[in-house]
Amino acid sequence: MVEKPAAIAPFNNFARLYDETRARSLRLCRPLQTEDFLIQAADFVSPTKWHLAHTSWFFEHFLLKNTLPHYRPYSPKFDYLFNSYYQTVGKFVPRTERGLLSRPLLSEVYAYRDHVDAAMAALFDRDLFTPENHALLELGVAHEEQHQELILMDILYNFSRNPLFPAYQKNPVPAAQASSLMWVDFPGGLIRVGQSEAGFAFDNERPAYQAVLPPFRMASRLTTNREYKDFIEAGGYVRSEFWLSDGWDWIQREQISKPLYWYDEEGQHFEMSLAGMKKRDPEAPVSHVSFYEADAYARWKGCRLATEGEWECAAGTSEVRGNFLESGKLTPTSPVMDDLVQQLWGDLWEWTQSPYTAHPGYQPLPGALGEYNGKFMANQLTLKGGSCVTPSRHLRKSYRNFFPPSARWAFSGIRLAGNR
Amino acid sequence: MVEKPAAIAPFNNFARLYDETRARSLRLCRPLQTEDFLIQAADFVSPTKWHLAHTSWFFEHFLLKNTLPHYRPYSPKFDYLFNSYYQTVGKFVPRTERGLLSRPLLSEVYAYRDHVDAAMAALFDRDLFTPENHALLELGVAHEEQHQELILMDILYNFSRNPLFPAYQKNPVPAAQASSLMWVDFPGGLIRVGQSEAGFAFDNERPAYQAVLPPFRMASRLTTNREYKDFIEAGGYVRSEFWLSDGWDWIQREQISKPLYWYDEEGQHFEMSLAGMKKRDPEAPVSHVSFYEADAYARWKGCRLATEGEWECAAGTSEVRGNFLESGKLTPTSPVMDDLVQQLWGDLWEWTQSPYTAHPGYQPLPGALGEYNGKFMANQLTLKGGSCVTPSRHLRKSYRNFFPPSARWAFSGIRLAGNR
Amino acid sequence: MVEKPAAIAPFNNFARLYDETRARSLRLCRPLQTEDFLIQAADFVSPTKWHLAHTSWFFEHFLLKNTLPHYRPYSPKFDYLFNSYYQTVGKFVPRTERGLLSRPLLSEVYAYRDHVDAAMAALFDRDLFTPENHALLELGVAHEEQHQELILMDILYNFSRNPLFPAYQKNPVPAAQASSLMWVDFPGGLIRVGQSEAGFAFDNERPAYQAVLPPFRMASRLTTNREYKDFIEAGGYVRSEFWLSDGWDWIQREQISKPLYWYDEEGQHFEMSLAGMKKRDPEAPVSHVSFYEADAYARWKGCRLATEGEWECAAGTSEVRGNFLESGKLTPTSPVMDDLVQQLWGDLWEWTQSPYTAHPGYQPLPGALGEYNGKFMANQLTLKGGSCVTPSRHLRKSYRNFFPPSARWAFSGIRLAGNR
Amino acid sequence: MVEKPAAIAPFNNFARLYDETRARSLRLCRPLQTEDFLIQAADFVSPTKWHLAHTSWFFEHFLLKNTLPHYRPYSPKFDYLFNSYYQTVGKFVPRTERGLLSRPLLSEVYAYRDHVDAAMAALFDRDLFTPENHALLELGVAHEEQHQELILMDILYNFSRNPLFPAYQKNPVPAAQASSLMWVDFPGGLIRVGQSEAGFAFDNERPAYQAVLPPFRMASRLTTNREYKDFIEAGGYVRSEFWLSDGWDWIQREQISKPLYWYDEEGQHFEMSLAGMKKRDPEAPVSHVSFYEADAYARWKGCRLATEGEWECAAGTSEVRGNFLESGKLTPTSPVMDDLVQQLWGDLWEWTQSPYTAHPGYQPLPGALGEYNGKFMANQLTLKGGSCVTPSRHLRKSYRNFFPPSARWAFSGIRLAGNR
Repeated sequence: MVEKPAAIAPFNNFARLYDETRARSLRLCRPLQTEDFLIQAADFVSPTKWHLAHTSWFFEHFLLKNTLPHYRPYSPKFDYLFNSYYQTVGKFVPRTERGLLSRPLLSEVYAYRDHVDAAMAALFDRDLFTPENHALLELGVAHEEQHQELILMDILYNFSRNPLFPAYQKNPVPAAQASSLMWVDFPGGLIRVGQSEAGFAFDNERPAYQAVLPPFRMASRLTTNREYKDFIEAGGYVRSEFWLSDGWDWIQREQISKPLYWYDEEGQHFEMSLAGMKKRDPEAPVSHVSFYEADAYARWKGCRLATEGEWECAAGTSEVRGNFLESGKLTPTSPVMDDLVQQLWGDLWEWTQSPYTAHPGYQPLPGALGEYNGKFMANQLTLKGGSCVTPSRHLRKSYRNFFPPSARWAFSGIRLAGNR
Repeated sequence: MVEKPAAIAPFNNFARLYDETRARSLRLCRPLQTEDFLIQAADFVSPTKWHLAHTSWFFEHFLLKNTLPHYRPYSPKFDYLFNSYYQTVGKFVPRTERGLLSRPLLSEVYAYRDHVDAAMAALFDRDLFTPENHALLELGVAHEEQHQELILMDILYNFSRNPLFPAYQKNPVPAAQASSLMWVDFPGGLIRVGQSEAGFAFDNERPAYQAVLPPFRMASRLTTNREYKDFIEAGGYVRSEFWLSDGWDWIQREQISKPLYWYDEEGQHFEMSLAGMKKRDPEAPVSHVSFYEADAYARWKGCRLATEGEWECAAGTSEVRGNFLESGKLTPTSPVMDDLVQQLWGDLWEWTQSPYTAHPGYQPLPGALGEYNGKFMANQLTLKGGSCVTPSRHLRKSYRNFFPPSARWAFSGIRLAGNR
Repeated sequence: MVEKPAAIAPFNNFARLYDETRARSLRLCRPLQTEDFLIQAADFVSPTKWHLAHTSWFFEHFLLKNTLPHYRPYSPKFDYLFNSYYQTVGKFVPRTERGLLSRPLLSEVYAYRDHVDAAMAALFDRDLFTPENHALLELGVAHEEQHQELILMDILYNFSRNPLFPAYQKNPVPAAQASSLMWVDFPGGLIRVGQSEAGFAFDNERPAYQAVLPPFRMASRLTTNREYKDFIEAGGYVRSEFWLSDGWDWIQREQISKPLYWYDEEGQHFEMSLAGMKKRDPEAPVSHVSFYEADAYARWKGCRLATEGEWECAAGTSEVRGNFLESGKLTPTSPVMDDLVQQLWGDLWEWTQSPYTAHPGYQPLPGALGEYNGKFMANQLTLKGGSCVTPSRHLRKSYRNFFPPSARWAFSGIRLAGNR
Repeated sequence: MVEKPAAIAPFNNFARLYDETRARSLRLCRPLQTEDFLIQAADFVSPTKWHLAHTSWFFEHFLLKNTLPHYRPYSPKFDYLFNSYYQTVGKFVPRTERGLLSRPLLSEVYAYRDHVDAAMAALFDRDLFTPENHALLELGVAHEEQHQELILMDILYNFSRNPLFPAYQKNPVPAAQASSLMWVDFPGGLIRVGQSEAGFAFDNERPAYQAVLPPFRMASRLTTNREYKDFIEAGGYVRSEFWLSDGWDWIQREQISKPLYWYDEEGQHFEMSLAGMKKRDPEAPVSHVSFYEADAYARWKGCRLATEGEWECAAGTSEVRGNFLESGKLTPTSPVMDDLVQQLWGDLWEWTQSPYTAHPGYQPLPGALGEYNGKFMANQLTLKGGSCVTPSRHLRKSYRNFFPPSARWAFSGIRLAGNR
C-alpha cells in the first residue's frame, strides 16, 4: 500500500473529494493479483471485486439514475449482482454466493467503474447538484470509505485462510513500545451524546441526546498482546466466570482459545497480518478480538468496557489524529501522542458495552437508504474511534461502528474502563 | 387451576411465605398427568418434573448445605441432574437432555421436595436465619415464582406440539372488550430508573440511575388480535421495510407468518392456549409475539416500542394490580381498570426496545449466584410488567424480564409508544 | 424380563399365535415405569408407548378395517398418531416427534390394545379368515415381533442416555468363555440364496436366486470384546487405512473411538446393558458396533466380512437355535453348541458386506404394504442370524435385517470371513 | 472446445500418451478466463486450477519422487495443497477449502505442470521405466483423464451458479432425433463380470467373477427429456410410491422437482449446459439426474434399472464408440449407430441398480494407492458406459464409475431395464 498522507480535498470541493476517494479504492487494489479479487473465505467477507462493483452501483443507483439526464446504466443485471442488502430495491445475489461470480471479469468491473466515473464527471461538469444530491454524494463517498476498510479487513481474512499466508504488503513497522497503563478519571454528569452539528453524519448519529454519566475512569491506552496473553495464561478461556453466557457457549462451540489471528508453534508466537504471518509484537495492542473476549478480559481485570457516552465524553474536543489508513502501516502500534487518554483515534476500533440502538428520536433516511443503518439495530455492539485501516476523514466523535458480539475480523481492540 | 386469590403472607413471615410458595408449585401441577411432567418439546423449555426438582435443589444447594447443621443432601447425583446453568457449581445435564430423565421418577422428585421442605422447616423452627440467609431465602422464593411462570409457559408450548392439543385447564373466560386505543402524553425529563429502595430486588434492578427522557407518549392499552391481523393482511410479514435485518432473516429462515399459537383453518381463527385450542378472541391482546414482530408491528403503525425508562416513567407510582396468575384466567383479557395507561401490570409482558444490559454501577451477586442475571446481558431485550401467568407478588416497577428477540413462548405482547 | 421358554403355538393355530405374541409385548413392558414409556432419546428410537400403539394400529388398519364387519376404529386420530411411515396411507407424526406425545396416556394406549384384541378375537371366533387375511395376520405378528426387538433396543438406548444408567432387568449372567477362533472352509460353488419354500417370509426374501460363490472361509465364532480391544489399542480408530472413506468421516465427525455402550473410567471397563451399567466381559462378543467398525476391524485382521450368500451357505440346513429373546439373558454370551460355525443364530446380528438390495426378480407387496421393505433398499447393509433380543420364531436363513452403515443401537456384532 | 478427433497414441508409446494427455488438459482450459479457474461453487466440485495442480502432484508424488534420481519437488507445500484424499500420504487442504487458494497463482500452477513435464521427459529419455513404473504411469494418465471429465463437470456446475450463466463454448449442436424406444431381450445365464484380461484396468474392475443372470431386457436407448417431462407431469416428484425412502426424504429436504440443470420460465423450457443456458431439446437424453430420480422414473414406467452384470452382458463385445469428449459436442445427443442397444457407450453415464462394492476376491493396490477406489465402496452406485465429456480411450466394458445416489453433477442418464 502506497497511500500518501496527502491532504484530502476541502469539504466543499465535491468533485475532488469524489475523485480522490475513487482513486484510493483502486490504489488499495494494486498489491492484489487477479485471482485475489475473487476470494470469499467466509459468509461475512466479500470479494474485492464485489466491493469495487458495489460501491459503483451505489452511485449509479442512488444518484446517477435519478439525476443525470439520459443516464444509461452499465448493465441491467448489475442491480441484481451488486446490490448488497437493499430489500426495497429488489432481489440480489445472496451474500454467501458473491465468491461464485468469476464473471463479470475483473476487467469488466473496472470498466463499470470507469463508466460510473465518467457519468459522475458529467454531473460535476454540468453542476447539476441540488442540496439533496450533495447529501447523496457525501453518503456515497462515506459508503466507499467504509468499503475501503472492508476491502482490507476481507483481504486479511481471506489470506489468513490460505495455508501460504500471503502478504498484502511487506512494510517494516518498528516494534511497539507500550507505555504504562494509567487510569484517567472523569467526573461524569450531564453530557450530550451524538451529532448535533450541521454537516454530514450518518442518520444513526442523530439526533444528539442528553445522558447522565456517573463518575468513571478510562485506561490511558489500549490493552496489549502481552497483557492479553496473561489473561490466557490465567485460564481466561477456560474459566466460565468471566464470560457472558452467550460468549461462553460461543467459545465452546467454536473451540476458541485465542484472538482470531494468533498462531503459536513450538513456543514461537505469530500473528497473521496484512504483512503476512509475522512474529507477534507483545507491546502492540491486541487486535481482532470479539466483544465477548473484550468483555471477559475486562472482567478478569476487575474492570469493564466503556459505554458509548463515556467514550464520547473522554474524546471531548480532541482532534481526529492517530494511526489511520493514511499512515500506511496497516497494523496497530504504540500510542505516539501525549494525550491523557491515548489511541482513542485510530489503531483499533474500541468495543463499548453499548448495544447499537437508536438514539432517542432517531429517524432513518427516507426510502431504500433507510436500510443503511437502522435495520441493523439488534444484536450488535457499538465500536468507536476508527482503526489503522480506516480513512481518517471518515471519523467523527459521534461515529458509530457496529458488529455482532462474536465478530472478530474487524480491527477491534480493548479499552478498559471502570467506576470510580 | 384452582388458584385462590388468597392474601399472600406478610413479607416478614418467611416460613409462611416459603410454605405458600412451595404449595403453589404443587397446586399448579394438579391438572397434569404423570407423563405430562416429562415432556420437553424444544430446547428452550424444561419438563415440569425438572422444574419441581430444580427449585428444590436451589434451596438445598444455596441455603441448606451451608446453613442447617448436619444437613444430608437427598442424593449426591442431584447436583448434576438439577443444576440449571451454574457453571461454577459444577457440571450438569445439558439443557437439551432434560427430557430424557424418565428416572428419577416423579414420585422420587416429590420425595425430594418433601425432604427439602422438612429441612427448611427445621431451619425455620430453630430460627437459624441470619440476614444473609434471609436474603437467600427471598431469592429462593422469587426463583421458585419464576419457575412457576415457566411451568405454565412450558406446558403450553409442550401441549401445542401435540396434535391432540390437550388443555391444561378448561375454564370459561368471557370475551374481551378492547377500549379505543388512546395516546397518553408524558413530558419526559430527568427520571430515576431501577430500584433505589431497600427490600428484596434482583441484582439486575440495582443501582437506580438517572436518565433524561425526551417527551414521549404511550398507547392506552395493549395491541389486540384484531389489530395485529390488520398488520398481517397489510403484508406485514412479506414487506421487508418494517423489519430489523435479523428479524427478516429469522422469519424467512423459520417460515414465520403469524404469532406462535395462531392456527387458521378454513376461514376459522384459532389460538392454542392453556384451555386448549380455542377460537381466537379478536378483542383480546395479541400474545406470544417476538420482539422482532412487536417492533415490525410498531413500525407499520408509524410508532415504536417504549424504552425501559419510559415504561417505568409511565408506571409511576401505580399499584401492582391486574390480571396475574392469581386470577386463574391464565389468558390475557381486556383492561378492567380506569387508569390512563391500562394493562401496564399483568395480562402480557411488554417488549421494550431496551437491550437487557447492566444498569450503570451494576454489581452481580457474589459467588455462583452472580450467574443468576448478569451473564445473560447480551442479545436479549427487556420486558416489563408481568403477565397472566406471573405471581403478582413477584412484580415491581424495576423488575426486568428478558428474552432473546426471537423468543415467543413467553406471554409477551405489544405496547405502542412514540415521540411527541 | 420373565420370558418363559414356553413352547410357541403351532403355526396353524393363528389365534393362539396372535394371543401369545400380543401377550409377550405386554410382558416385555412389565419392568418399565409409566415415565419410561415416553422417552425418545434420539430420532432413530421410538417411545415404548408408541411401539405398543403402532403394532395395534397395524392390525387395525391393514386387517380389521377391511375384514371385520362394522369394525369401529378406536379413534380417528390414531391413523395420524401411530402410522410409522406408510406415505400412501396418509400423513403422520414425524418420527422425531413421537416423544412429545404425553397424550394419549399410557392407560389409553393399553385400552387401544384391548380394543384391537377384542376385535381380533371376534375375527377368530367367526372364522372370517381368507388366505389373504391369514397372510396379513402372519405379517402383523412378524411385525409385532420386530417391534418387540425394537422395544428392547430402544429402551437400552434411552436408558444409556440417562446419567443414572437405569437397569431394565437385573439378572445374573455367567461370565462368557470364548473358544479359540478357528476357521471353517467352504468350497463355494453354485448356491441358492433367499427363500424358495412356501410359508410365510417377507417379500424381500423372495424370490430365491442362484449365485456363484468362490471358495471362502468363516470364523468359528463372533469377535470378542477382548479381541476388539486389541484393535483399539493397535490404533484402530486413528489409522485411516482400515476405514471406508465414509466411515472415517463418520468417526471424525462424531468423535467415535469405541463401541456405542463401552465406558471406561479409571482403568475399569464397563458396558451399558439391559442389566444397567456393568463390568465388561472380555470373553463376550463385542456388540453395538456399526458396519464401518465391523469392516475396519476385519481389514485390520487381514480379513473381510461375509457376503449374504456366504452366510446362507454357511448356515446350510442348521436348526434355528441359540441365545434368543426366550433365553431371558438379553445379552450376548459364549457359543454353547458344538457346531463348526457357532453363534450363527442368536447372540448378535452379523453385519455382512452385502448392501441391502432387491433379489433378482423381487416384487414388493401390493398397496401400502409395498412400503414395508422395498423402499429401504438404498444405503443400508444386510445383517443375518438374529440376536439375544430377537424372538426365535421370527428367524429364518433367508431373513434379512438391514441398517445404515453407521447404526449401532441394534445388537450387532462381527463375524470374520475371508478368501481361501 | 476445439478437441480434434485425432488418433490417440498406440498404447505402447507411453511418452506420447503422456504428452497428449497432458496437452489435452491444457486444451480443455483454453476457453476459461483466469478467474474461472478459481471457482468452487459447492463442496463436491473443485477449482480447475486445483485439478491442474493435483494431476501434476499425482505424477510427482507417486512416480517422480521414487523414480527419477535427484528429482527436486517443485515446492514442499504442494503435498499439503494438492493431495486430494490420500490419508496415508499426509495432511491436506480440506476439500471444502480448495476454492480459497488464490495463491499459488494460475501462472505458478502452469509452471508446476511444466516442472513435472520436464522431469517426466527426463524419465522417458533415460528409459528408466520398470514394469511397476509403467503401471504407475498408466494409472497417472487414467487419473488425469478422470480429472479432465471432472474439469468439465465442475465448470458446468460453477457456471450454473452464476446468474449470468456463462458459456464454456458456444458450438451449434443439431437437434436430437430420438428413435422409438424398443426392448431388447437377453437370455441371461452364467456370465463373467469384470476384467479378466491383462492390460491396464483399475483395481476395482478385478478380478472377474461369475454371475448367474435371469433373463432380462433393456431399452434400446436412453430416456429423453420429453419422456422425463411426462413423468414430472404425472406427479413424479409428488407421489411417494415411486421413491426409495432416502430419495423421498432427499427431494423433500432439498426441494427438488426437476433435473439439476432444468430451468422453466414463462412456459419456456431451458437447460444449463456447457454452451450456456439454452432451449431444452425434448428429444435429447435427460441428463444430470440422480440415482434416486432414475430409479423413481423407472418404477413409474413399471421398469427398473439394470444391474452391472446385465449392462456388461448387453455390452457384449461391442466396440467403444459413441459421443465422447472427442466429438467436441459436450452434450448428449441422439443415438447414431444401428446397434440393437444404442448409446451404451458415450452420451451419458448410465445409473445401474448395483451398489458399488468389491468384486469377489478384490485386492486394492498396495500402499497409498489402495485408497484410490476401495475406500469408497459404501453408499455409492455403479454407473457404466461413459459420457460426452469422457475421453473415449478411458472406457472399458468393465469400467466402473460411482457416485452417491443423490449426486447429479455428473453427465448421468437413465437406461430402462426389466424382467422378462
